Amino acid sequence: MTLQRLRASGAPDAPGATWANGYRAGNELFLSGMTAHPATQAAAARGEPLGAYAQTMLVLGKLEALVQAAGGHRHNLIKTVVYLTDVADKDEVGRARRDFFAGHYPVSTLVVVKALVFPQLCVEIDAWARLDLDLRQAP
Amino acid sequence: MTLQRLRASGAPDAPGATWANGYRAGNELFLSGMTAHPATQAAAARGEPLGAYAQTMLVLGKLEALVQAAGGHRHNLIKTVVYLTDVADKDEVGRARRDFFAGHYPVSTLVVVKALVFPQLCVEIDAWARLDLDLRQAP
Amino acid sequence: MTLQRLRASGAPDAPGATWANGYRAGNELFLSGMTAHPATQAAAARGEPLGAYAQTMLVLGKLEALVQAAGGHRHNLIKTVVYLTDVADKDEVGRARRDFFAGHYPVSTLVVVKALVFPQLCVEIDAWARLDLDLRQAP
Repeated sequence: MTLQRLRASGAPDAPGATWANGYRAGNELFLSGMTAHPATQAAAARGEPLGAYAQTMLVLGKLEALVQAAGGHRHNLIKTVVYLTDVADKDEVGRARRDFFAGHYPVSTLVVVKALVFPQLCVEIDAWARLDLDLRQAP
Repeated sequence: MTLQRLRASGAPDAPGATWANGYRAGNELFLSGMTAHPATQAAAARGEPLGAYAQTMLVLGKLEALVQAAGGHRHNLIKTVVYLTDVADKDEVGRARRDFFAGHYPVSTLVVVKALVFPQLCVEIDAWARLDLDLRQAP
Repeated sequence: MTLQRLRASGAPDAPGATWANGYRAGNELFLSGMTAHPATQAAAARGEPLGAYAQTMLVLGKLEALVQAAGGHRHNLIKTVVYLTDVADKDEVGRARRDFFAGHYPVSTLVVVKALVFPQLCVEIDAWARLDLDLRQAP
């Protein structure tokens, strides 16, 4: 089966990465967990660290960029796993999900981990997407 | 492809939730991680907090309810990811899995996280299910 | 659909386990998260605990053994979720991934958890694989 590596300017490969950000095989997309790095790093260096809402919107935007690189859209995202570093951020993450998904919600799991890969990160989101599934069509 | 949102009285949608509990697309089910909330909250308020065995049985029962809402059964659950808050609970979780799956075990991953979404929770289980796969048929 | 339980001498079932290590259904493989246990336990007992590089290579070797039991190979591994106990190990894990995948990288998520199932473990890797997808064929 043909495997297409997904490349999106909105979710660039990290230099020296030992992972791919996404693949497409038919209608199925395989995606890496996304974070708001390096925007979080730059913001922290400016003394204006990004909060959970801003980070979540950036993360969801990256996932969308990868799905778009495969010819799809945000409502093809069918499942997410949300990793927080602080449970207090859950309402802000929920607010971002509300704004982003506009009522067409993927299934989701949310847990609080000890740390993410960089200290400025408060949220990472892993995702599953399918080009033949549009959550706006679910009754 | 037709996408059916799964609704089960045994695993009701949380008010204001920014996720769906489950979808069916053909033989494939997409499920959210389940917890024993709000039973855990009520039990804690009564001064009788639910332990890991009780919580795991409730969680597995919710996953089963969602699979049943799609016309399936518990042996369609093919993969789980178990998030604990205390590694000491692993044996009780294993005992619940033994009672629930009766020897027909999904693949599984178990990790200990810093916290789950409510303080009374000691276990959350994410899952994958397929209506065309019955673990009782695996030799 | 026919479901085949995967058994590999390189990734033996744990005694009394309440999970299966792997299943094959058609071209799709369902895998459990793997750790370097019990090699980690034996090494610790010898006073020579295994570091993150060694553990990661053992873990990836077990995933490969399961994929091989289904007739596949390491480049069928399309997605991983890496659970570390210490973020400081990420570079050693990356080095192992580089050596193992040789440039043909699965999508991946990496988070730091509070603990894994045994205290000697510093890394667990969950994975998804497909026999009809070969990462060496992705342009």
